[in-house]
Amino acid sequence: MIHGSTAKIQAAGGVRSLAFDASRPLHLSNGETLSPLTIAFESYGALNAERSNAVLVCHGLTGDQFAAGPNPVTGRPAWWPRIVGPGRPIDTNRFYVVSSNVLGGSMGTTGPASLAPDGKPYGLRFAPINVGDMVRAQSMLIEALEIETLFMVIGAGFGGMQALQWASAYPKRVFTCATIASGARQTAPAMALCELSRQAIMADPDWRGGAYLTHGVRPAKGLSVARAAQQIGNLAEPALRQSFGAAAAKERFALVSPLDESANANAFIDRFDANSYLYISRAADAFDLGADFGGNLSNAFARSTTRHCVFSFSSDWRYPTEEGRRGAGAALVARADAALIEIDSAKGHRAHLEEDTQFEASLTGFLDASAAQRGLSLHAGAN
Amino acid sequence: MIHGSTAKIQAAGGVRSLAFDASRPLHLSNGETLSPLTIAFESYGALNAERSNAVLVCHGLTGDQFAAGPNPVTGRPAWWPRIVGPGRPIDTNRFYVVSSNVLGGSMGTTGPASLAPDGKPYGLRFAPINVGDMVRAQSMLIEALEIETLFMVIGAGFGGMQALQWASAYPKRVFTCATIASGARQTAPAMALCELSRQAIMADPDWRGGAYLTHGVRPAKGLSVARAAQQIGNLAEPALRQSFGAAAAKERFALVSPLDESANANAFIDRFDANSYLYISRAADAFDLGADFGGNLSNAFARSTTRHCVFSFSSDWRYPTEEGRRGAGAALVARADAALIEIDSAKGHRAHLEEDTQFEASLTGFLDASAAQRGLSLHAGAN
Repeated sequence: MIHGSTAKIQAAGGVRSLAFDASRPLHLSNGETLSPLTIAFESYGALNAERSNAVLVCHGLTGDQFAAGPNPVTGRPAWWPRIVGPGRPIDTNRFYVVSSNVLGGSMGTTGPASLAPDGKPYGLRFAPINVGDMVRAQSMLIEALEIETLFMVIGAGFGGMQALQWASAYPKRVFTCATIASGARQTAPAMALCELSRQAIMADPDWRGGAYLTHGVRPAKGLSVARAAQQIGNLAEPALRQSFGAAAAKERFALVSPLDESANANAFIDRFDANSYLYISRAADAFDLGADFGGNLSNAFARSTTRHCVFSFSSDWRYPTEEGRRGAGAALVARADAALIEIDSAKGHRAHLEEDTQFEASLTGFLDASAAQRGLSLHAGAN
Repeated sequence: MIHGSTAKIQAAGGVRSLAFDASRPLHLSNGETLSPLTIAFESYGALNAERSNAVLVCHGLTGDQFAAGPNPVTGRPAWWPRIVGPGRPIDTNRFYVVSSNVLGGSMGTTGPASLAPDGKPYGLRFAPINVGDMVRAQSMLIEALEIETLFMVIGAGFGGMQALQWASAYPKRVFTCATIASGARQTAPAMALCELSRQAIMADPDWRGGAYLTHGVRPAKGLSVARAAQQIGNLAEPALRQSFGAAAAKERFALVSPLDESANANAFIDRFDANSYLYISRAADAFDLGADFGGNLSNAFARSTTRHCVFSFSSDWRYPTEEGRRGAGAALVARADAALIEIDSAKGHRAHLEEDTQFEASLTGFLDASAAQRGLSLHAGAN
């Protein structure tokens, strides 16, 4: 399945990856190259004979590639089992689903915690990266898997930014693009949460100017603030009020956080590389697809035949409907096919991770209509 | 001017305060009492013979009482010189302006850094407080100054919450109420910034479980995150994008914050008591005036004759116009006199601190119309 001899599949500790040798460097937006490059990924389902049923799932800011199965490193369950799996909206009996750890990440893909050619961790020597670089790395993976056109690229939040970047950079290789609770540029609340998280990490004495790995320590306290930022940003206003409002403030000062302190939540602090957070969140904050096209977002979708579906959740204050509407509107102006669906939900940003029949039914409907247009039959095996 | 013998004016290091003896404890919402109580305050201008021209200025989350003159402790200039002063909208040739350090603060008013009756700092032994308690303390100051009715209570952000609480708790003692870039309850983005700041402070090893004062240290790194949260929350989206967007992300990882690192900004870290931040921000997050009235915000303004003016700024994502509209609408439902003015500004929340002719003219117009209704002449001396 792997194209050419410059890339080979590896597997270590349950993490599967594709390693590109020095002849296939990643060309970064800032003019530098990154090599060697490893991209960790998972796949679910089977590619059909026409290689036309591939869905690329892009994960969020602090996510990983284990969308539909447990993470063997952390033991955490799949993060999107409601959406990806047999009989789910992205039906793995029907679609071949690929999900890769984003460039700069720390779950197997090359990032700041990886060893540089000199045998020491990159740390802050890692080059600055943007969403364009991340998508270019994913594109190398998809090419190596000999998939010419993705049936769909889909992602929520930061994952949605990657999906939009795919549709803009490779319009002929993306049949449909689904963005969920996301935007064509970073929003102010999301940027504020990211910047404060970065400051908290850098303020942790154990960050050691970014060189914590060589000192054998980890900035766990800074990471705990970054984790809290994600959890807080995921909650709708009523849930925030319940956690931090009048009832909480009546008590003597609580030293125990009302946030999720489960093993799953704590796994973030144990596993996520702090410098990865700095690099990835900076890329998220820098994302502004319209600015890349002279300030006219419609130009990002010019001459595109990609079908866009933009989902938002009514109570999501981090990625409000307004930002989704801006993206869908720009695509329409560019004569692309675009739909905007605001899901009425009280669950805030995290609604995309929870049970929501309206969201699931809408996504299924969009997939079915797109599959019919693409000439995909109900099951991959039938092709 | 000071009423009775239970309170006396003190002055130390340029900070003036009113000290209430043990016979005048502050009754807190949680059933406890706080005593002795000291309230630091500044005043500008002169009280007229009818004692009808007093304006109470309530400061924001990390502010102080030095609205119109320099802070002698930090050397920082006045924080609201554009609005309060001779010839300014709140004209000190015309009005008697009082501004007090909020309960729980650390600029002279009793707070967690104050000495408890046992001679040691309260620290986390300080009782939980809410906006109602803060306003009740201010009310003791205003009574001691023998001011029966305030011509106006005004504040921005957290100061606006105090103004609304005044109007609700003491409707007959508040002739006009001006809230600026604020709300009748905390917003989700503001709550997120506050909670992350609290977590960063508590994650700082120098916080020492809240007992840093007895250890002779200060959680400066945690406070620097809290300061950043304020600065970030003050910026409009375009300014955030300029600081943290694509241009910033192109560089090798910057260890220098793009935020304001001036001596003024750093004074916050040097002077603000970290536990004060925890207590005050919790009170802000807990503020929900409607919830105090059975979920019906209009009930908070029932039988009120206070004139309300609600200002918002179009680019303020922390306290958006939507929240101001909710407050103004509720006041109208209660048959109060209420106006909502959205100022078109690109400066975000901090627009209220900067030059803005539309804001200044609107505020002046509201003051003039209200003064005419109150029978105030142009200059205090003429009464």
